Amino acid sequence: MDNRSIGFFDSGLGGLTCIPYLTAALPEERIIYFGDTARTPYGSKATSTIRNFSMQIADFLVQNDVKMIVIACNTVSSICLEDLQFRFPEIPVVGIIAPAAEKVAASCGNENRVGIIGTKVTIRSEAYNRLIRELKPELEVYSEPCPAFVPLIEEGIIRNDIMDMTIRYYLDDFVLENRLDTLVLGCTHYPLIRDRIERFYPDLRIINPSEEIICSIQQILTERSMLAIHSERENIFYASDLSENFMNMIETIFSSQEMKVQFKNLDIENTRK
Amino acid sequence: MDNRSIGFFDSGLGGLTCIPYLTAALPEERIIYFGDTARTPYGSKATSTIRNFSMQIADFLVQNDVKMIVIACNTVSSICLEDLQFRFPEIPVVGIIAPAAEKVAASCGNENRVGIIGTKVTIRSEAYNRLIRELKPELEVYSEPCPAFVPLIEEGIIRNDIMDMTIRYYLDDFVLENRLDTLVLGCTHYPLIRDRIERFYPDLRIINPSEEIICSIQQILTERSMLAIHSERENIFYASDLSENFMNMIETIFSSQEMKVQFKNLDIENTRK
Repeated sequence: MDNRSIGFFDSGLGGLTCIPYLTAALPEERIIYFGDTARTPYGSKATSTIRNFSMQIADFLVQNDVKMIVIACNTVSSICLEDLQFRFPEIPVVGIIAPAAEKVAASCGNENRVGIIGTKVTIRSEAYNRLIRELKPELEVYSEPCPAFVPLIEEGIIRNDIMDMTIRYYLDDFVLENRLDTLVLGCTHYPLIRDRIERFYPDLRIINPSEEIICSIQQILTERSMLAIHSERENIFYASDLSENFMNMIETIFSSQEMKVQFKNLDIENTRK
Repeated sequence: MDNRSIGFFDSGLGGLTCIPYLTAALPEERIIYFGDTARTPYGSKATSTIRNFSMQIADFLVQNDVKMIVIACNTVSSICLEDLQFRFPEIPVVGIIAPAAEKVAASCGNENRVGIIGTKVTIRSEAYNRLIRELKPELEVYSEPCPAFVPLIEEGIIRNDIMDMTIRYYLDDFVLENRLDTLVLGCTHYPLIRDRIERFYPDLRIINPSEEIICSIQQILTERSMLAIHSERENIFYASDLSENFMNMIETIFSSQEMKVQFKNLDIENTRK
């Protein structure tokens, strides 16, 4: 048993899309979430910048005594999962790409045609393609960066014509020309526009890494006897900018859940002494 | 005579739109520009976050011996011009809102109908409305936040259907219902989509603060005998994330100019000891 919290982090509010799946599968667990809303979006930034920000945040989570770090961000997972695992050998560090790639390999036959969408950094890293190729070399995998999705979602522009037009701008040719039947939402923000995507491409099978990562978390905690039981900790949501959008999004995501949450503003740049 | 550089800063690449006007009017001046591309956009963030970032950047510019600070960002100007003037009493600190408000008051008659567009923070501050009301109380002024413009521009999404649709989403009702004849581009990023806006509303008279601010700079430097003559300094462009978008934008803006520039990546968070 280990009643310490699980540390989640993302460039902004995207990583929040993992939380309902976690609370459904592992209701005893408590979390500390950090969203870097003051510096979002990450997905078009230099890898050195992203690495620097991620180290700062992971240090903060470890200082707050988390039992596990979950990188609830595809961009960060694609470029510095190993760096973070090396920096914190004493606690498990889980990335979001491997669980989703495993799901693709396990659930797709050779005839399937899989598309990956994500930020520029994630797509350029080819992290998904590489992992899927290792697991199932026969599979055809295509990928497409969609850099406008995250900033629009962070601005709360989700249910309207601009988002619909942006979806069709990125996906019409990509889905149709490659005759895709499976689409991986390779960014934790994208589940927030999943229903909009499904309206245009109702036959696509969607793979959601924010859901798949929960199996990995459960497996690791179970294997290491680290599951929580009656933890008295609270769920805490930190944001480097406690903006209206962040608060609204937490409300949207948790509106159907009975969950005590605490919000805190955190000046991440000054957490290291 | 004062051959030190003028310090410019913005949340990202928007402030670059001032530079061609500066080099045309004052070719002897040299500049140090800082774009906070690692933390852009600012316009929907909490005012405390924006103030904190702005102080960091201004400190950096002053450490680099600038003779003047130009806040080439409406969001920052709208909430912390006075804080920065108070912090650095020994050098002039110029905001971008007052020169544009003065232009509106001087060039509009009472029959004109003026619209201000900007980020959420700028519009909520009512800085433009307040200044214009002081100068010309009879004028009808309307304002509208357009939060998607900056993130799209920072992603390089400028000349395509998504931007056009976003322009019409924000401006169709605003311009037509208020029967506007004058539009203030109350964000330094917006001149980059000026031609797209003009395509849809060809009769609108556009007021561009990135151009108007140059008169204030010239006037202050002249009054204080601080104009440069044969300065041997280089123009230096710092960015907290030297991303592809930033480099491309500098190239777009300066492609027609013969200007020696130097790019530097700067970890702004670690400039204060």
